[in-house]
Amino acid sequence: MLNAATPALAAAVSLAGGIGFIAGGTKLESLEASLNNVSSLLRAGNSQHSHTKTAADTQLPIGVGFQLWGSKLNMAIAAVAKHIPAIVWLFAPTCTEDFASWSEGLRRATDGKTKIWIQVGSVEEARQAVKLAEPDVLVVQGSDAGGHGLAKSASVVSLVPEVLDMLESANRPEIPVLAAGGIAEGRGVAAALALGASGVVMGTRFLAAQEAGVAKGWQDEIIRVSDGGRSTNRSTLCDRLKETEGWPSCYDGRAVGNKGHEDERRGMPDPENVALYKSELAQGDSAWGLHGRMVAYAGTGVGLIRHPKPAADIVSEVRSSAGKALRRSVEVSVGETSRAKL
Amino acid sequence: MLNAATPALAAAVSLAGGIGFIAGGTKLESLEASLNNVSSLLRAGNSQHSHTKTAADTQLPIGVGFQLWGSKLNMAIAAVAKHIPAIVWLFAPTCTEDFASWSEGLRRATDGKTKIWIQVGSVEEARQAVKLAEPDVLVVQGSDAGGHGLAKSASVVSLVPEVLDMLESANRPEIPVLAAGGIAEGRGVAAALALGASGVVMGTRFLAAQEAGVAKGWQDEIIRVSDGGRSTNRSTLCDRLKETEGWPSCYDGRAVGNKGHEDERRGMPDPENVALYKSELAQGDSAWGLHGRMVAYAGTGVGLIRHPKPAADIVSEVRSSAGKALRRSVEVSVGETSRAKL
Repeated sequence: MLNAATPALAAAVSLAGGIGFIAGGTKLESLEASLNNVSSLLRAGNSQHSHTKTAADTQLPIGVGFQLWGSKLNMAIAAVAKHIPAIVWLFAPTCTEDFASWSEGLRRATDGKTKIWIQVGSVEEARQAVKLAEPDVLVVQGSDAGGHGLAKSASVVSLVPEVLDMLESANRPEIPVLAAGGIAEGRGVAAALALGASGVVMGTRFLAAQEAGVAKGWQDEIIRVSDGGRSTNRSTLCDRLKETEGWPSCYDGRAVGNKGHEDERRGMPDPENVALYKSELAQGDSAWGLHGRMVAYAGTGVGLIRHPKPAADIVSEVRSSAGKALRRSVEVSVGETSRAKL
Repeated sequence: MLNAATPALAAAVSLAGGIGFIAGGTKLESLEASLNNVSSLLRAGNSQHSHTKTAADTQLPIGVGFQLWGSKLNMAIAAVAKHIPAIVWLFAPTCTEDFASWSEGLRRATDGKTKIWIQVGSVEEARQAVKLAEPDVLVVQGSDAGGHGLAKSASVVSLVPEVLDMLESANRPEIPVLAAGGIAEGRGVAAALALGASGVVMGTRFLAAQEAGVAKGWQDEIIRVSDGGRSTNRSTLCDRLKETEGWPSCYDGRAVGNKGHEDERRGMPDPENVALYKSELAQGDSAWGLHGRMVAYAGTGVGLIRHPKPAADIVSEVRSSAGKALRRSVEVSVGETSRAKL
């Protein structure tokens, strides 16, 4: 989510009863500024409620996500030690072993107060993460996810159960699994719980939050696009257009298909595509869309998102519709009405 | 499933309370032989039970799947008119309009007794199918599915809800949706129901049925392979190796990765890869596997399949575990224990 995950978005999600995240980024100064900002917003928000103080009040009730390749552990330690976020979320190491040094360093810096969430995209990566870093939570990202993820992956439909079975056979069934990828509303949350996940994380849905730090052109795309599987692509093109170098080779990213993808399919070489991309950078919001060249990262759930909303409304809507979806499916299952109907 | 879907498999699934399918194939003689065969098996099986006769007994309680491109409608009509299967399942037309002529022809041939199921892989295809052919059921296939499907697709996690919303806004909410792709056991079924599907279809799981018509080498692969997203690929390579021509260009197929895929990644041109494939054809079961070249189509759910079993055991296991998974997830949701635990 990078810059999309603003302090305002993180604070709004946490105040609504979810857990908001900000992105660690690569500069210590801006991370510290973000943490100060979110801390003020949470104090202001909490003073409007009648919360009783708990042990958790000594922590910042948000998480900080770090993309391990390209990030410096000592910078992360400095920021985290000062603000003690409830969670750090580790993703995309150059090599899996980095999960170990980061987890150890961050646990030591916060005296074990900050929980370590590790994002994985395969059963093997989950197994390695558990062995190397003893995560408090595994975030299991499937192929529907927007933005970066493993190029070779399954959706959460088969990945979450297979990771849970691996945890069972590794005698670590107590590690909670959160499902990520393609989940944009209550039915997806209900499905994740049915798969055995303890909860979900949502990215794309919050790109349509009023507090998200995205260009209007990008947010308009999230609302416009339907048929998520057809309208989005997994590809490395967006990294090449933005001249982002350094992603480990097993990653690509899912984004809404646009003119750049179309030109690539027709055989346009990268330098020309990059030049056209750069020439549109100054055009602002009009450079997004089917005929534009700006990058709109989004998961396949994008087709389920129809209106921009305050983050708090998203959290409460998703919760209540997930409960409804589960109750309805139990009724279907108990009555076996589905088969009789066919 | 083609030859894997034997009369013995279809009969066993239907006798166990599911709905078994055979593949229409392209030759009328072999389809008629299969229908005769499954009809005898069902009579033999039913005589062991104390079923009361119903209207459904005038039909054959199985389905027949037709891959529309490469199949002849008049052949399908001849076979279906004689045996009146409960269902025909239409998939992969050369152009979407073919759904209309096939549905109309088959409905007329069976006096409307045979239900028309149409398989789609995107919201747009679902919309077209509903408009053109008034299907009795939509089978919604996601990106995790084994064998052929749309190359550009979402998993059922986002695709099923988006298709359901389309049906709602097209005033056709009564059309049942079945989820396909990545569902290999009870948790996947529970997830599909939570997404709003009325049921599921499973292919890969039945490749491990004792009644499946697959080479031992292929079935061994289904049991051996884990980490379904990492171990399988979507690609057109398998069609090229088998020199199968005619698939509409929007399709590819998911299969277990093997030596042929590896050689392709390293730049081996097709003629050499095809020659190597052919040279192994005579080797039998040993030509399957990571270092072999035979094609083992499989969905990402392959990692959840651990033992070959009689089809009846698969049906009953999946049903009971789906119910358990749903009840457990409702408890999690009601108690909100998941969040408290984190």
